[in-house]
Amino acid sequence: MIEKITSLQNPRLKQLVRLRDRRPRDEAGVFLVEGYREIRRALEKDVRLDELYFSPDWFLGENEPELMARAQAAGAQLFELSKDTFAKAAYRERPDGLLAVAPQWKRTLADIEKGSGPELRSDRNSGPDPFLLVVEAIEKPGNLGTILRSADAAGCDGVIVCDPVTDLFNPNVVRASTGVLFSVPCVVEESAPVLAWLRRRGIRIAATTPAAEKLYTDADLRGPLAIVMGSEQYGLSEFWLKEADLPVRIPMAGQADSLNVAMATMITLFEAVRQRGA
Amino acid sequence: MIEKITSLQNPRLKQLVRLRDRRPRDEAGVFLVEGYREIRRALEKDVRLDELYFSPDWFLGENEPELMARAQAAGAQLFELSKDTFAKAAYRERPDGLLAVAPQWKRTLADIEKGSGPELRSDRNSGPDPFLLVVEAIEKPGNLGTILRSADAAGCDGVIVCDPVTDLFNPNVVRASTGVLFSVPCVVEESAPVLAWLRRRGIRIAATTPAAEKLYTDADLRGPLAIVMGSEQYGLSEFWLKEADLPVRIPMAGQADSLNVAMATMITLFEAVRQRGA
Repeated sequence: MIEKITSLQNPRLKQLVRLRDRRPRDEAGVFLVEGYREIRRALEKDVRLDELYFSPDWFLGENEPELMARAQAAGAQLFELSKDTFAKAAYRERPDGLLAVAPQWKRTLADIEKGSGPELRSDRNSGPDPFLLVVEAIEKPGNLGTILRSADAAGCDGVIVCDPVTDLFNPNVVRASTGVLFSVPCVVEESAPVLAWLRRRGIRIAATTPAAEKLYTDADLRGPLAIVMGSEQYGLSEFWLKEADLPVRIPMAGQADSLNVAMATMITLFEAVRQRGA
Repeated sequence: MIEKITSLQNPRLKQLVRLRDRRPRDEAGVFLVEGYREIRRALEKDVRLDELYFSPDWFLGENEPELMARAQAAGAQLFELSKDTFAKAAYRERPDGLLAVAPQWKRTLADIEKGSGPELRSDRNSGPDPFLLVVEAIEKPGNLGTILRSADAAGCDGVIVCDPVTDLFNPNVVRASTGVLFSVPCVVEESAPVLAWLRRRGIRIAATTPAAEKLYTDADLRGPLAIVMGSEQYGLSEFWLKEADLPVRIPMAGQADSLNVAMATMITLFEAVRQRGA
């Protein structure tokens, strides 16, 4: 028996809307996964879904019932929404009639240690040495999502999100990551313990800064490596800059802000991939 | 004497709203430039502005009057809008009280020929050989704008937009390009004459396709070069694929669509920059 929600005053509906904000999200320990593609990817990666809200009035294709059945089989409770209640629940401009609630998870640095247990990912191509991305205080969810996609495409072993302004479970991070959030191991941690952990493991730190003399293509990006990127507005903090083993810069021909942090991250990651002989 | 627009029925206001759509935009031969940063960049690049609409109720800073004076001195007619009429005119979610109308321009392939006249750009770093980007049938304005930013940062001599689905003067291209549209020479042309022009000038064609054997980092991207990228949904057409002198692929570790066309373009452009010794 599937509960049907038709009232805009329904408390479950109101809670869905509240979950767009960080505090209620963190208090409830859950987050929103909206859209067919993202929900499918969550299920593929065995991410547990607590609830799945659906509204056939908004469906775009014919595969939705199959996905719903799969979610239900994996333990999700299903709720049917009327067209207008789903419109209220959806945060996307163009909803596709599927919205899930999943429990947040927490990974620690130990989870991305190579050789310290079962590999979180089977499709990494970074070789025997750790290949990590560290991002500091990223503000825009779209940038964080894009950065996760780059790390996925580059085969990073993990992404460490230091001192986040935007939390990983922001609905726009989930969306911009196109579900990569479910596959790339992401750890949220403060900068100081991350630095200590990198030092302890002999992982070199490459940091891009316009002040560096060396081009990123002239630095040796092989071996155990963490690429550290700063925030949109302020760049890397002094904390990381003074610790960088490899301060590097990306050559820029055009206007000062042609490359944003997500673009600079991507370029640096793929230069590392080139050197590492992926 | 500055005309003040306070009625939502004002015909100028209605025309501003219409200019969001391509047909009225092309019929009028103009386009919208919204926002302080974009308008400033247009003025810096001597782009003519026909009209400048402003609404002090929406201003975010204190430099707006200076920019308005500069636009007026350069020939723009000024119009003041009330808060609610500007809200209607603006296409951005967070308007900043400035919206200009500028005449569209048309550049031809001759405009990006090196040595064929005054250089359009003084900040190109691509050396003596042509370094061009060709994009085919890009659909999303955000992608086209991001691609223009990459071409700017990489120091391309020009971007050739073939068979565009999204036109260059779409407001979201202007926005996503952060004004780079005003500085990177962009030519809109059909694929056949572009190919003939490239062949005539001995410019080699590099095309990324997942089917290529060679990695993009193993191809020689020096010398006269055009990097050709296909559309989001279909990739490159057969027309370009069969003409590619250098079919190359980008290695991908993660899920199939981790890299979108804008990201793949950026990575390829910056590998070319590396090889060309920028």
